[in-house]
Amino acid sequence: MAQRIVIVGAGFGGLATVRGLRDVAADVTVIDRRNYHLFQPLLYQVATAALGAEDIAVPIRAALNGQGNTTVLMDEVTAVDTGRRQVSTRSGRQEAYDYLVLATGSVFNYFGHADWAEHAPSIKSLDNARLIRGKILSAFERAEMVQDELARRRLLTFVLIGGGATGVELAGAMSELARGTLVRDFRHIDPSQARIVLAEAGSKLLAGYPDALPEYARHSLQRMGVEVHLNTEIKAIDDRGVTTKRGRIDAATVLWCAGVKATPDLSLADHPEIFVIGDAAVVHGADGKPLPGLAAVAKQQGGYVARALVDRLAGRTAAPFRYRDRGTLAVIGRHSGVANLPHFKSTGVLAWLLWAIVHLYFLIGGRNRLAVFLNWAWAWLTYQRGSRLILSGGSAEPSNTDSPRKPEEFAHGQHD
Amino acid sequence: MAQRIVIVGAGFGGLATVRGLRDVAADVTVIDRRNYHLFQPLLYQVATAALGAEDIAVPIRAALNGQGNTTVLMDEVTAVDTGRRQVSTRSGRQEAYDYLVLATGSVFNYFGHADWAEHAPSIKSLDNARLIRGKILSAFERAEMVQDELARRRLLTFVLIGGGATGVELAGAMSELARGTLVRDFRHIDPSQARIVLAEAGSKLLAGYPDALPEYARHSLQRMGVEVHLNTEIKAIDDRGVTTKRGRIDAATVLWCAGVKATPDLSLADHPEIFVIGDAAVVHGADGKPLPGLAAVAKQQGGYVARALVDRLAGRTAAPFRYRDRGTLAVIGRHSGVANLPHFKSTGVLAWLLWAIVHLYFLIGGRNRLAVFLNWAWAWLTYQRGSRLILSGGSAEPSNTDSPRKPEEFAHGQHD
Repeated sequence: MAQRIVIVGAGFGGLATVRGLRDVAADVTVIDRRNYHLFQPLLYQVATAALGAEDIAVPIRAALNGQGNTTVLMDEVTAVDTGRRQVSTRSGRQEAYDYLVLATGSVFNYFGHADWAEHAPSIKSLDNARLIRGKILSAFERAEMVQDELARRRLLTFVLIGGGATGVELAGAMSELARGTLVRDFRHIDPSQARIVLAEAGSKLLAGYPDALPEYARHSLQRMGVEVHLNTEIKAIDDRGVTTKRGRIDAATVLWCAGVKATPDLSLADHPEIFVIGDAAVVHGADGKPLPGLAAVAKQQGGYVARALVDRLAGRTAAPFRYRDRGTLAVIGRHSGVANLPHFKSTGVLAWLLWAIVHLYFLIGGRNRLAVFLNWAWAWLTYQRGSRLILSGGSAEPSNTDSPRKPEEFAHGQHD
Repeated sequence: MAQRIVIVGAGFGGLATVRGLRDVAADVTVIDRRNYHLFQPLLYQVATAALGAEDIAVPIRAALNGQGNTTVLMDEVTAVDTGRRQVSTRSGRQEAYDYLVLATGSVFNYFGHADWAEHAPSIKSLDNARLIRGKILSAFERAEMVQDELARRRLLTFVLIGGGATGVELAGAMSELARGTLVRDFRHIDPSQARIVLAEAGSKLLAGYPDALPEYARHSLQRMGVEVHLNTEIKAIDDRGVTTKRGRIDAATVLWCAGVKATPDLSLADHPEIFVIGDAAVVHGADGKPLPGLAAVAKQQGGYVARALVDRLAGRTAAPFRYRDRGTLAVIGRHSGVANLPHFKSTGVLAWLLWAIVHLYFLIGGRNRLAVFLNWAWAWLTYQRGSRLILSGGSAEPSNTDSPRKPEEFAHGQHD
């Protein structure tokens, strides 16, 4: 009988694994709670109305429909039984495996303050990106209507917590939304007066970037009207704003952009048939530091696991995983970005262009590529954003509950 | 003091009114529960994964931001006080008016069976189009997983109730989705075996169309694999399917495409300062029959009310409203449509092309036009649909509660 390989999660890591198993004579099953693969690096653009939800996702079935050895199940894994080697799903299914790849993603790390998630959601899924978009745009709508000046200031204050790439990109996008797109839309408020605060606990933005790049990012954001607060640890978050080490900021919208949480190791020592990849895994790089939660890391790990499985099925031993750092890029705003590539550091227009080209290149699906390119070109030419709709589907408030489940749930081998 | 004109609803009728008041020296206020104007004729394409939600809507503020005499409020009108001439809103606002235009849209007419709405939702809003898309796609996903053959048949049966333009277009789109787009995506089911039933109580489809057009539509749909059941009155709808005069159809998905409900008259006899337009109004045409609930009717009425207001503000008497029928178009599927224009009846490729050109022409916003054109061109070339994402925002089931409120609510002049 053919070997059964079960892959949980069809993000960058999971999809790279499945694609790497294209020509293997095995039964491959992919299980994901959603029917689509998400291009997560552009999620903040959905939240800030630059892109539509449909532009940055591709149906998993469409991405894999030429792959005859693969079954896709839209279902949620609720337990892994490492003894019987099977996973249980929410729909009541038992899927037996010979090899299991867990690529279940991560949840945002609130550093022990799980209750903050309610007031400061993080942009993690397509559903909640759309809800956060609604929250941001609704703040302007409500500010247009209130009479009280203090309430208006609070509605027009946006606090972003965490000065990594996510926080920097989001701050830049928020500034362009308020000072570019919305600027002529209201009669009673001036959206360009919106206060956008980027609070970072450390002493610089983009901590992982070398040389002058963090300083460049800070200057660029400040030129765009963003208040950058460094060395500003968060003490408390409530429904009226945040309290930092340096004082109180009243704000209707607080977004969490700080680190993601991950737990197990790439391969389980006592279960060599189980692999954990992507954001769900902590893997240490050549420098001894954990690899960052990047799409590139997940994709390389997925490709590696696929090759390792091909080797194992053929009776060979796989070489150990080694991450090849091809660099990182972040965009700040119009004509402004930072590039940290192995032999090339750059800021400004060139980094901004490079960012756009690389992201278009890695998007899956020609239609998405075209749609994102046209959305960007349109926004660049007109300063307008095409996706400025406040959509909801029942609940009006963004919730953090649709973040990927915690990887810890899979560390135990128990039935429900 | 400038006269105050309040317009409730920014659909086709409301927006046409506001735009017609561009150069009037009056304070114009538009109140809508949503921040966007929706191109409703293409809503079924969002529900069948051909278009993204963002492609067929435009922010009301963006559509009107050059119009200096106009304030846009995202709010919901809860009562009209015709004595004091003011409307109350959900946020607690009181807006005084000298003239009031009610363009609040319609709800689907379940002909006295309000309880059917739960099992057979109608595609009315962008939020519920997305939920219905999720419901349709989820039925295929669940069918892929169940073992029981009867359950699988039920999941793969889709019943559309009502053979007007909405039902015909939706049936065609469902057939293309199942037999074109999804056909290679599954391992355990054959989506092309999905049963798509279009049930119509009358003796023909497209009852408003003359000559051979209804017969052409029936033949086209049948060639596309749609079961057309004429003279098939619905007796009951429950969560397992529908019971018709001719028997039982077990189906996981039932969609309501029958008539919309409207109530008051264009101008209120005892309140000449209040206009009711669009789907919210019943106006009789030259032939004595009520005008249909079409975008064209709403837009002409909106333009008319604007001109009538301009006349009144200038002390002139307005000529009565007369609807100019410029014809109707419906699309059935690839290369197949019907055109019923004043001096031109046509079926087939020509009608299909005409439909596409007219709809692109009337879409608001260059970006939306481009996005829809590219989505269509892409789908036409590849048979793929770009928007095949099962998105949700809390509730997993489509609800009918986000249909526009009933126009009757405005017929009474009371505070909450």
